[in-house]
Amino acid sequence: MRGPRYTPIVAALPQTVPFVGPEKMERDRGAPFIARLGANESVFGPSPKAIAAMQGAGAEIWKYGDSTSHDLRHALAGDLGVAPENIVVGSGIDGLLNSTVRLMVGPDDHVVTSDGAYPTFNFHVAGYGGTLHKVPYRDDHEDPDALIAKAREVDAKLVYIANPDNPMGTWHSADRIQAMINALPDGCVLVLDEAYIEFAPEGTAPPMDVSDPQVLRFRTFSKAHGMAGARVGYVIGHVDLIASYDKVRNHFGMNRTAQIGALAAWADRDWLSHIQTEVARARARITDIATENGLTALPSATNFVTIDCGRDGDFARAVLQALLARGIFVRMPFVAPEDRCIRVSAGPPGMLDAFAAALPHALKEAGHG
Amino acid sequence: MRGPRYTPIVAALPQTVPFVGPEKMERDRGAPFIARLGANESVFGPSPKAIAAMQGAGAEIWKYGDSTSHDLRHALAGDLGVAPENIVVGSGIDGLLNSTVRLMVGPDDHVVTSDGAYPTFNFHVAGYGGTLHKVPYRDDHEDPDALIAKAREVDAKLVYIANPDNPMGTWHSADRIQAMINALPDGCVLVLDEAYIEFAPEGTAPPMDVSDPQVLRFRTFSKAHGMAGARVGYVIGHVDLIASYDKVRNHFGMNRTAQIGALAAWADRDWLSHIQTEVARARARITDIATENGLTALPSATNFVTIDCGRDGDFARAVLQALLARGIFVRMPFVAPEDRCIRVSAGPPGMLDAFAAALPHALKEAGHG
Repeated sequence: MRGPRYTPIVAALPQTVPFVGPEKMERDRGAPFIARLGANESVFGPSPKAIAAMQGAGAEIWKYGDSTSHDLRHALAGDLGVAPENIVVGSGIDGLLNSTVRLMVGPDDHVVTSDGAYPTFNFHVAGYGGTLHKVPYRDDHEDPDALIAKAREVDAKLVYIANPDNPMGTWHSADRIQAMINALPDGCVLVLDEAYIEFAPEGTAPPMDVSDPQVLRFRTFSKAHGMAGARVGYVIGHVDLIASYDKVRNHFGMNRTAQIGALAAWADRDWLSHIQTEVARARARITDIATENGLTALPSATNFVTIDCGRDGDFARAVLQALLARGIFVRMPFVAPEDRCIRVSAGPPGMLDAFAAALPHALKEAGHG
Repeated sequence: MRGPRYTPIVAALPQTVPFVGPEKMERDRGAPFIARLGANESVFGPSPKAIAAMQGAGAEIWKYGDSTSHDLRHALAGDLGVAPENIVVGSGIDGLLNSTVRLMVGPDDHVVTSDGAYPTFNFHVAGYGGTLHKVPYRDDHEDPDALIAKAREVDAKLVYIANPDNPMGTWHSADRIQAMINALPDGCVLVLDEAYIEFAPEGTAPPMDVSDPQVLRFRTFSKAHGMAGARVGYVIGHVDLIASYDKVRNHFGMNRTAQIGALAAWADRDWLSHIQTEVARARARITDIATENGLTALPSATNFVTIDCGRDGDFARAVLQALLARGIFVRMPFVAPEDRCIRVSAGPPGMLDAFAAALPHALKEAGHG
């Protein structure tokens, strides 16, 4: 009989996809969204210097990118106070999570995360045949103590936490995360996802300590640097751990203009400050819109605000659907009780006006009040 | 004891890298190359329309790319006479080979290729713990009969062939490849790497038959379309096989401007014709340079010419080193007896002039004559 033979792991995997993208949703509804506030992209855009650098390098796209991302790694390392050998660059945090899971997780291996945390991490754990254990959020925060306790209980090889957290926008202090690091069981590596760290208050990121062989810190150009479409992320960690990525990563996988754009974006501190200001303003506005509608916005250390719709998941899903039908692309947590919320990305005034105009109708349609 | 725990497969992998990139070589030698003719890039560049499309989309890099590469897949499918569901787009053939191997190969699984064929495929097979079996080239061609015989002997899940071949530039007729397809053992999938197909004579590519669940055809925008740095490749195959990639691929891994550029490049047939003409001219020139130096150029159906240096691997390696020292970046086959050759990519007249000027000195330095 003709046909392929999949691995047992692949044969057992469901045909699921972690996220449906807004372009597909637009095609399905037959109209573009008027406010793209669902994917925590930086709607304010990247540094004009990054755009110019990428445009200037356009004609050189015939060249493969530098397989070592040398210039970018050196720039990052210099500013972060680590060696270039402590950094690996990859195609976004998603791609780097894939490699990370692949390095350590196979059948019979255990991994711990929070129930409702980043689904793409879970996708990779399942994809390599690992067993995922989930602990609940506590008061809309990931729960470091519960994560560590579970990691110890199941002898986990990896434990995941995002600080600040997605999808809730909440965060822990550097001290709390450092205590979690100190409490890691032997042989367990912390996947510390800091995608949103640039939006968090001072004192959220623990000190860099690349002598610790059990901590990997994930950062990205997709959020504060406004380059989600470029696919540039990086991991900071112990030299041995970072060197291990060379065994499995797609060495020539980086887009060349993305490397060049990221380098220019990294150098543009003024633009980063500008974005931080715009995001703070947008968070305040989204919070006001929530309040005006009788809802409660959670405090946020990210570029989005999670709004408690005040009832159950079915109600929040109805609100979300009504917003989508009005051309407002937002998302929401997948798991109860966090799924009583919707999640709205920071955006420019025009898009937030559209959200503000649609929300009362969406709430009414969902049966509010 | 603190520290990570790798999977047994990863722990056993060597700390090797398939290719050293030219940027690293330039840094190591402390000077840029004057002729970049080693990586089979399209030195003539991409379509100006593709460049313009990418530049025009630069400010939208804050958006994630379309996770389904909808527009590109539809354009490709329409022209190739298949359905969009027969195509998966990924970050170059390298990234797609990774996913392909992952879908089917684990420990205890067997894979067949030619000794000296594309090393990145071998890197992935090793990376997923598979056992690789190699058959020799025959008269500087990959040997379909030997590949099939070995696949049958070891009950291979995958068998790899590139047509046209890299690093030799040689090719088989469509009939010969079709006979290979027809002879595939049960449960063995053919990885048909057609990265260079646009440079081959009519009658090199067998007919598209996406009803066959044992054939995957790999194509790319890195070669004839001049977009190696963008990282856009695609696989054409049976709907079920193509759908399986969704289980493991990095769904939001595509660079957005790369998707847009590829779409524009695909539409620009005139540029493709122009490149085919330029490459044919460059192949003739490289062949002449070889002849003038008493060497033999192999016939080529690619955008490079493999030159038989007439002696053994040590001699060819010495020629290569002498060329590199003169700023001429070329590469060569890794394995005897093909390593008696060097491989020179098509390029514009200026770069070929530089190659022509350096070659006699390199040959002399290597002890020729």
